[in-house]
Amino acid sequence: MKEWDELLAPYKQAVDELKVKFKGIREQYRHSPRHTPIEFVTGRVKPVSSILQKAKRKAIPIDQVEGNITDIAGIRIMCQFVGDIDTVVELIKIRNDFRIVDEIDYIKHKKESGYRSYHMVLEYPVQTIDGEHPVLVELQIRTLAMNFWATIEHSLQYKYSGQIPSHIEARLHRAAEAAFRLDEEMSQIRGEVREAQKIISTTTDPINKPNG
Amino acid sequence: MKEWDELLAPYKQAVDELKVKFKGIREQYRHSPRHTPIEFVTGRVKPVSSILQKAKRKAIPIDQVEGNITDIAGIRIMCQFVGDIDTVVELIKIRNDFRIVDEIDYIKHKKESGYRSYHMVLEYPVQTIDGEHPVLVELQIRTLAMNFWATIEHSLQYKYSGQIPSHIEARLHRAAEAAFRLDEEMSQIRGEVREAQKIISTTTDPINKPNG
Amino acid sequence: MKEWDELLAPYKQAVDELKVKFKGIREQYRHSPRHTPIEFVTGRVKPVSSILQKAKRKAIPIDQVEGNITDIAGIRIMCQFVGDIDTVVELIKIRNDFRIVDEIDYIKHKKESGYRSYHMVLEYPVQTIDGEHPVLVELQIRTLAMNFWATIEHSLQYKYSGQIPSHIEARLHRAAEAAFRLDEEMSQIRGEVREAQKIISTTTDPINKPNG
Amino acid sequence: MKEWDELLAPYKQAVDELKVKFKGIREQYRHSPRHTPIEFVTGRVKPVSSILQKAKRKAIPIDQVEGNITDIAGIRIMCQFVGDIDTVVELIKIRNDFRIVDEIDYIKHKKESGYRSYHMVLEYPVQTIDGEHPVLVELQIRTLAMNFWATIEHSLQYKYSGQIPSHIEARLHRAAEAAFRLDEEMSQIRGEVREAQKIISTTTDPINKPNG
Repeated sequence: MKEWDELLAPYKQAVDELKVKFKGIREQYRHSPRHTPIEFVTGRVKPVSSILQKAKRKAIPIDQVEGNITDIAGIRIMCQFVGDIDTVVELIKIRNDFRIVDEIDYIKHKKESGYRSYHMVLEYPVQTIDGEHPVLVELQIRTLAMNFWATIEHSLQYKYSGQIPSHIEARLHRAAEAAFRLDEEMSQIRGEVREAQKIISTTTDPINKPNG
Repeated sequence: MKEWDELLAPYKQAVDELKVKFKGIREQYRHSPRHTPIEFVTGRVKPVSSILQKAKRKAIPIDQVEGNITDIAGIRIMCQFVGDIDTVVELIKIRNDFRIVDEIDYIKHKKESGYRSYHMVLEYPVQTIDGEHPVLVELQIRTLAMNFWATIEHSLQYKYSGQIPSHIEARLHRAAEAAFRLDEEMSQIRGEVREAQKIISTTTDPINKPNG
Repeated sequence: MKEWDELLAPYKQAVDELKVKFKGIREQYRHSPRHTPIEFVTGRVKPVSSILQKAKRKAIPIDQVEGNITDIAGIRIMCQFVGDIDTVVELIKIRNDFRIVDEIDYIKHKKESGYRSYHMVLEYPVQTIDGEHPVLVELQIRTLAMNFWATIEHSLQYKYSGQIPSHIEARLHRAAEAAFRLDEEMSQIRGEVREAQKIISTTTDPINKPNG
Repeated sequence: MKEWDELLAPYKQAVDELKVKFKGIREQYRHSPRHTPIEFVTGRVKPVSSILQKAKRKAIPIDQVEGNITDIAGIRIMCQFVGDIDTVVELIKIRNDFRIVDEIDYIKHKKESGYRSYHMVLEYPVQTIDGEHPVLVELQIRTLAMNFWATIEHSLQYKYSGQIPSHIEARLHRAAEAAFRLDEEMSQIRGEVREAQKIISTTTDPINKPNG
């Protein structure tokens, strides 16, 4: 078995490269008249202790974690509006720098806990000092409200080792509903914003545009 | 009148330093058993065009913007829970590296638009190559939900030049209420999280603590 | 003609991605017993004013700068030892994430001015929001001493608009020789360091190695 | 005894803040007609293993390392020219955000090994979540050539546990001389650069200066 540091190095590299790539999407939208679908991007490599726990829970031999645990490298893309998530998914699909190996829509089909998010698993080819090494990366695409709720739920799950008492679970459910309603209300406004933008761009005299 | 680049340089420096300082608070909590009250920190220097607009609107002569526009440098601290905002305010007040010159609580007293946030104006001494130069910095402390709503409202204000049509304003109000309800629901859970933490820390055998 | 901001956006993106990629090489060597050949990495997009000057000097029409100016995007890799440069060139050649379109060895064949550096031109495919867009990137690989001298020479060239007075040119030549001698002396020590490392790794008891 | 992580947290914070502060000096010079005396800035917190070794070697009890090991936090400022070092020292002395507690000039009085560098020890007040906590920080100011040589010497010292064989030591000495000569040659050019700058600024028509 390789050292953890050495084994995780290409995952860390994949996370660093993908963060720069997805943050670059935001930057490109800034030079375009269109609304950016990406609010911010985070990434992390799973701590060794969490990898070991997951391997144990799923009965995965330690020397087979690379192919069987798909979230050793994780990237999270946060959007302002639910509708932006589809735009991000389309942007992901036209790229040539990785291969999509899995896709789960926990927004159309939310988890029983209330969890909502769009998941993709990517196979990303890292160029190492010993040649190309493909790694799996889990991509989570969600709104700010989905992310807020998921962060809280994750820490409670951790605290209660997955056995959240039912009265707290009830409160979590109410919070999930409040997050959902916030996303719904915001979606209404997204329409307005886009209509407003369309009006602005069609009524603006093209002669006054720079380099028009 | 000095060049804008030169005039804004100490403001940019203040923003860079304060971002590192407030992000450092998060880091310090990671080494402590307490829940970090800071989720993330952003900062910016106001673009020259916005400074000029604000100066015009408020009839401030261009050579007096430094003392009269308090948000040329802006820092924003985002919290998970409404209750965390008080903790952050306390942390700000015990520091010796700047002076607090103003404080407005738009949470207890929310704006008519629905805007909620805790504002402070700091006088921060920047050490420049020509000696100490104090600058004003506006600090906004808010929850993720408050921030989400405020970002949307800000872009609509900008789009409609401050004259948001009433049917859109009505939707913004409903979104503000949804954001408020999300904060309320989350506050309920914050109590649970803290109680859980208290139980954990009082029942853990101190002998098993590292270097206990 | 496209806006400069828009035209330069993929170049900026290429620089950001390649900086992360080449800095990652350093990181990978830290987990290996081998000496890292990369000391540090910098990158920049050429300022518009410099692109215009170069286009004028070389009589390149403005709408043809993309294919004809190869250093709009520039990456610089600094090495401790002259011998490390070959290692970096080999690492570049085994990668699959760009294509090498040109290669000039100003170390074996130094310029009359005293300039030494290894140049490569890469064609790097940037994934943009409108599909793949390949851009040219100039890569300069040099020792710290070569870089130090080149930086000084560049600012003097700029100051004297390419007409450096002969008495200053003479001093620049003496400095170039001193930089060359420093590289020569250091190369002697590089041999010692590597021999020492080989002795260490062959005499170390493998049982004592972590996960040996 | 406190945990290492907790004990080192304010040192890490001091390093992060001082890096931003000294990098800011470079930025300020960019807006001024003067030559920046700072080329780049690095910083690090000493690894625990090195702190323990040094404590053992100097017979410092573990609970007294904070006051007795002055380089737990280290900042390094690199300059292009030897003459820039004095300018940096002056800039350090006019600041109000720390206190200088020690100063050693290893340039006027170089070490027997050939080591040259200007050292200062600062007492820097870190604002922590539990109040102000002053920490010691070692500041090393040196040219690129001094730094290059010192880095090589440091790794050879480490490799030979301080007992560098005499024939390698002889080569290190020759390299130190080559580094010294490079600094000497560059110093000659620095004069030219400054004279050229003076000529440029006195002959330039002030009317043509921006906002002149």
